[in-house]
Amino acid sequence: MHAALLPLIKELTTITELGSIHSVLSWDQETYMPQGAIESRAAALSLIAGLCHDRHTSQTFTDLLKTVVDIQTGQPFLADLSPQEHRMLQEIHRDWRMANTLPTDFVTRYSSLQSQSQYHWQKARQANDFSIFAPYLDKVIAMTRQKADYFGWQYTPYNALLDEYEPGATTTALTPLFTRLKEAIIPLLHTIQKKDAFSALPKGPYDKAIQLKFSHFLLREMGFEFDHGRLDISTHPFTTQFHPTDVRITTRFNESDVMEGISGTLHEGGHALYEQGLDPARFGTPLGAAVSLGIHESQSRLWENFIGKSPAFWQHYLPQLQSAFPPLANVPFADFYQAINQVKPSFIRVESDELTYNLHILIRYEIEQLIFQDQIPVQELPELWNQKYEEYLGITPPDDAHGILQDVHWSMGAFGYFPTYTLGNFYAAQLWETLLSAFPALEQNIQNGDLIQVRGWLKTHIHRLGKEKPAETLMAELTGQPLSEKAFVSYITKKYNQIYGL
Amino acid sequence: MHAALLPLIKELTTITELGSIHSVLSWDQETYMPQGAIESRAAALSLIAGLCHDRHTSQTFTDLLKTVVDIQTGQPFLADLSPQEHRMLQEIHRDWRMANTLPTDFVTRYSSLQSQSQYHWQKARQANDFSIFAPYLDKVIAMTRQKADYFGWQYTPYNALLDEYEPGATTTALTPLFTRLKEAIIPLLHTIQKKDAFSALPKGPYDKAIQLKFSHFLLREMGFEFDHGRLDISTHPFTTQFHPTDVRITTRFNESDVMEGISGTLHEGGHALYEQGLDPARFGTPLGAAVSLGIHESQSRLWENFIGKSPAFWQHYLPQLQSAFPPLANVPFADFYQAINQVKPSFIRVESDELTYNLHILIRYEIEQLIFQDQIPVQELPELWNQKYEEYLGITPPDDAHGILQDVHWSMGAFGYFPTYTLGNFYAAQLWETLLSAFPALEQNIQNGDLIQVRGWLKTHIHRLGKEKPAETLMAELTGQPLSEKAFVSYITKKYNQIYGL
Repeated sequence: MHAALLPLIKELTTITELGSIHSVLSWDQETYMPQGAIESRAAALSLIAGLCHDRHTSQTFTDLLKTVVDIQTGQPFLADLSPQEHRMLQEIHRDWRMANTLPTDFVTRYSSLQSQSQYHWQKARQANDFSIFAPYLDKVIAMTRQKADYFGWQYTPYNALLDEYEPGATTTALTPLFTRLKEAIIPLLHTIQKKDAFSALPKGPYDKAIQLKFSHFLLREMGFEFDHGRLDISTHPFTTQFHPTDVRITTRFNESDVMEGISGTLHEGGHALYEQGLDPARFGTPLGAAVSLGIHESQSRLWENFIGKSPAFWQHYLPQLQSAFPPLANVPFADFYQAINQVKPSFIRVESDELTYNLHILIRYEIEQLIFQDQIPVQELPELWNQKYEEYLGITPPDDAHGILQDVHWSMGAFGYFPTYTLGNFYAAQLWETLLSAFPALEQNIQNGDLIQVRGWLKTHIHRLGKEKPAETLMAELTGQPLSEKAFVSYITKKYNQIYGL
Repeated sequence: MHAALLPLIKELTTITELGSIHSVLSWDQETYMPQGAIESRAAALSLIAGLCHDRHTSQTFTDLLKTVVDIQTGQPFLADLSPQEHRMLQEIHRDWRMANTLPTDFVTRYSSLQSQSQYHWQKARQANDFSIFAPYLDKVIAMTRQKADYFGWQYTPYNALLDEYEPGATTTALTPLFTRLKEAIIPLLHTIQKKDAFSALPKGPYDKAIQLKFSHFLLREMGFEFDHGRLDISTHPFTTQFHPTDVRITTRFNESDVMEGISGTLHEGGHALYEQGLDPARFGTPLGAAVSLGIHESQSRLWENFIGKSPAFWQHYLPQLQSAFPPLANVPFADFYQAINQVKPSFIRVESDELTYNLHILIRYEIEQLIFQDQIPVQELPELWNQKYEEYLGITPPDDAHGILQDVHWSMGAFGYFPTYTLGNFYAAQLWETLLSAFPALEQNIQNGDLIQVRGWLKTHIHRLGKEKPAETLMAELTGQPLSEKAFVSYITKKYNQIYGL
């Protein structure tokens, strides 16, 4: 590391460590914290978040940054930087600019509104009554709109929101891809819907303790390092990292559906391998952090779907699953494989299949754009939501709990986040094609239970790099293609043609 | 609260919250943290400890304190304070003075030496080789001696160390009590040793999962609130609190000794009830914190021994224990009660019985005094240790792992800490006498499984008060007696006379 950068990096590492401490407190809250401690924990989280923000927006930090980059443009002053250091400074400047763009007063008010809004969203979902949530959603939209203005935008404020989660993403770039995706998958869905449904897997019971053991087993097979991580149980599965040496997954188990826990484990396991694969020597800097949400999601999707719902994977692991779970003992391979890949439009995004999942995302993407073009009042959102489900998926949500109230994202102001899920599918498909060319025996190896090859390649070509390159550049160089829906459409078409004999 | 105190209290609460965050990180390290994360966790702990210390020793804090007390004497300026506020300010001033007395450079070097010393103590204990630890112990003693000088002392530097853990404690006050204790229990021990040993409990196996369930059950019976706390497993049992609404116990279970886990649970449960009983509205101030280590230990001892090794307790709980653990099914009550109260001199303090336990403490107390009167070089300590075990307990440790290397305390510089364990026994005996007079039906109630009465009384008369009164005043007012060995000697003599038919 260039000596002139060290004081800045030291301070940044401290800020990152405070962020990790915040994550430990959050992880504990979701896993082991006794319920009655919620208020004192909220105070602790807010204290640490404040310390982080204060240090990141302090004059000290600005002064440190000013010694090495032009504070207006982010252009480094030093001539003898490595390309990685050059890139690192750009990312540090971007993060600093975003943290400093929002006035502290705004951050405090927004954070308080997020808490209230999330609370009322939960109540609204429980009561199945959108009107409880509507006034908060209205305020969250107004403040998020204001946030977009602080960040600055071109064409539509929504671009500022997209860019926050996937640097560089714009509606101009995404819409054509998403439109072509829609044009490919809706007809495919219609064709599939004319076919008979497959029989479902037995409803268990699948012992939860054995499910937990099986998840541990699968994670070890993937290369997850248990001396640098854990698996626990929580209401909503998530992955969090305090350091590359401490990456924690949570999942949940359903006694009547063994695949829910397995899919969750493989999905979060994919995220976790990314975090464990980051370079610990670069901890605290952008070079030691994941490059974007889209790429992160590509890792989880690759493991959950491309590998974890493939015939090769289950040719190896089904016998072990069957010996762990008696209800599956007599299910033939072909029936199992069809059952886990059954296409069926559903109301709930997180329960949907690999094909229709993206339609759930497209609906949200289209509605979010309308919201930030001021073209739809909040009270009309449930109807619009239901219309789009009817149009794209052919089903009408029976109520708002199965419709617009299902996701937490909007209550937290996380508009622009959903598209990264579909970008994850696109990137995963491009990576899968690349892996298949790099390793002609890949599927055979997976069928032999060798998953380490995939993990090794991802670690070397993606994880270790951190933010060395922007997401799009990284993926274009690695896969030889710009970001596009093509690989995904080709993968999904081929897969379902085969499964449904089209 | 007096309005003039609010800015100081706000800052103090933040410092306390940072301390709680440090405790969350430590708890996680001892319970769930993956092994390979030790280095990054050490960095996080050190960051938070530094932030705490910096804020407590900052000019800002001093300025806040100066507005309300004379910074030299701690005497409050304000005339219209409540007695509680007056007392609170004295305690705040004491804590501030102690934090500020040690130069930051000294704190850093001491903390680093503690880590190294603890590491080498562990290695020495594993290798059963005192010489690995000796040079570090020598340095720790030298720095602890220096610490005593910073704090200031009368008669012996050891008084400064005693005062750190038990405010107001001095050798002048303690030695006569400890001497009379020794004169009472050594002859009693000799008499008991002439009697036949009782038969031990069956060696199990006692299923660990069932032990965990039984510990949960006992904690609920004591009144431990599981919505404000948890029980987990760790190598060494401990209790930690982040807030009165989040108090966490750990214990450990032994498959061949069911009483190890039960004693640990009752002991830590006693500590935990104290922490859960503090007033949450006073969190962050000395009025919302436990008054002293001696009083804390009185709570754990009361539950572990006075209640948890009493006939009344087991008349109620033995049948439930027996139905949970088949190996105990045919043990008659009298045999069980004798077995759990068997007196037998042992090498290891934490495995010792209620009678000999205090001899382990007296040995450490006497050696600590010699150390800080510069009357014994480090290399002669093992021999002195063994001589004292021979003299007081009639047994000679076979090696240093069963002798001077058994406790972690000295490696961390915690000299002056051990006596608080015996003070805990003294206070517990005084409280037990008081409880018996306050509730003539107490033992009958315990025999009926009503433990809530004890918890309620302790909460009202001790827990809720925090540091409203100094430990000695609190106990003298509550029990009608000054701190003394008398109640304990009377309790233990009566108990063992009865058990051994003396």
